[in-house]
Amino acid sequence: MTIDEKVAPESEDGVPPTKEKMVIIAASGDLDKAWPVLILATTGAAYGLEVTVFFTFWGLSILKKPGVGITGEDWRQKVLSVFNRGSAQHLGMSTLHFGGIGPKMMKGLAVEKNVASVQELLELAQQMGVKLWPCQMTMDLMGLEREHLIDGLDDPAGAGSAISLMKQASISLFI
Amino acid sequence: MTIDEKVAPESEDGVPPTKEKMVIIAASGDLDKAWPVLILATTGAAYGLEVTVFFTFWGLSILKKPGVGITGEDWRQKVLSVFNRGSAQHLGMSTLHFGGIGPKMMKGLAVEKNVASVQELLELAQQMGVKLWPCQMTMDLMGLEREHLIDGLDDPAGAGSAISLMKQASISLFI
Amino acid sequence: MTIDEKVAPESEDGVPPTKEKMVIIAASGDLDKAWPVLILATTGAAYGLEVTVFFTFWGLSILKKPGVGITGEDWRQKVLSVFNRGSAQHLGMSTLHFGGIGPKMMKGLAVEKNVASVQELLELAQQMGVKLWPCQMTMDLMGLEREHLIDGLDDPAGAGSAISLMKQASISLFI
Repeated sequence: MTIDEKVAPESEDGVPPTKEKMVIIAASGDLDKAWPVLILATTGAAYGLEVTVFFTFWGLSILKKPGVGITGEDWRQKVLSVFNRGSAQHLGMSTLHFGGIGPKMMKGLAVEKNVASVQELLELAQQMGVKLWPCQMTMDLMGLEREHLIDGLDDPAGAGSAISLMKQASISLFI
Repeated sequence: MTIDEKVAPESEDGVPPTKEKMVIIAASGDLDKAWPVLILATTGAAYGLEVTVFFTFWGLSILKKPGVGITGEDWRQKVLSVFNRGSAQHLGMSTLHFGGIGPKMMKGLAVEKNVASVQELLELAQQMGVKLWPCQMTMDLMGLEREHLIDGLDDPAGAGSAISLMKQASISLFI
Repeated sequence: MTIDEKVAPESEDGVPPTKEKMVIIAASGDLDKAWPVLILATTGAAYGLEVTVFFTFWGLSILKKPGVGITGEDWRQKVLSVFNRGSAQHLGMSTLHFGGIGPKMMKGLAVEKNVASVQELLELAQQMGVKLWPCQMTMDLMGLEREHLIDGLDDPAGAGSAISLMKQASISLFI
């Protein structure tokens, strides 16, 4: 059963099955949501949790490769890819966006205050073994193929896998 | 005590008390939030969880009957009902709304990609026994009566019932 | 270790260690999110839970003192403090904001319908012993000092403290 394969692979890679789990459903493509998603994910991993982030709806845009351009075959998918071009480098903000000035300011401040960028945190998460699941349904809906997403992700998953994992998790958050 | 009546009715309707619980607080009236709420709720039910969704604040608009029109006695309630007319068929989007073109595009895509609509998922949730709780305080605040909401809902509930249920739940999400 | 000091102080102040915990991560400065944060926090406390709210990103603005004015040394911090002036009295709305008319209407309705204001709920939360944690990283990022925030808060904390606490909690929500 594919869900079991995704949810309980502990015995294969040697992680003890008693490791506590944390699941984050990342459903927003806003910079001010991607930041807490990845700060909590990497901090959770640093605290010894087995962390999985399920990227769904707008959240999937965090995983897009930079410079992918227009994607999809349907005209609606193409329009969505233009207005929601994504990649960790080009996320908008839920508030104070001001045509892109808001995110630029926040990023400038973060550099000065030594707060890691979303892109750096995403790389760190991968190095720390955080599992990054792209949502299969969202990929189909948006017309995104595996090659439009960054390397090193886990296989695309569905809501069932997320539910199975959250049932076992100590911490489940929807961000 | 009304909270106990709401939270622990298992012995009455024969559901074994060991069934794991999942609680979703649905606080947004946006299409791109209503979708994950109902996909997770129905998937949870399919995976054998006893699922309850507590619809509060803007989230209550998902439960409005289509075509209800202006509601409330206070002028502010009337204004809110105009700008937030709701029903599962008329939800806006948190981003890329573009005066209603965004939701139209997303719905069109969903039909083509065989993703169930929010309205279909709401009916499916009811058929699967997902408990749908309208928030009493929100009904009072917005001037919504029971007859403005769709049929087949559970009795209106308060935050106390939601807290009691989340204490027992394996998965609690705020969406 | 500072995290242990924050997370497990039960033995010191006499609270029995068996008390169930609830953690809310408050990451939004919108009125329609601050309300559920504080309604759930105070209701949780009323139901006997040990409740902690971690105010991070825009959510920190809920804790700002009224009338603090422009804060920060960096020009970007100053701009952010102007557009995000905060305090529980001056929160905007995520939808139907209409240049401040939306929040005004909602607050007027709340008064008429006997729903406590965000400010009243914040004071109530403090009286009920709800722990209010300002996020240290956000304070650094926004250029906010301890004196810009209301009195009676717990010491500033980081994501690690939040993770440690959520691991022990029966209910963890990201709002």
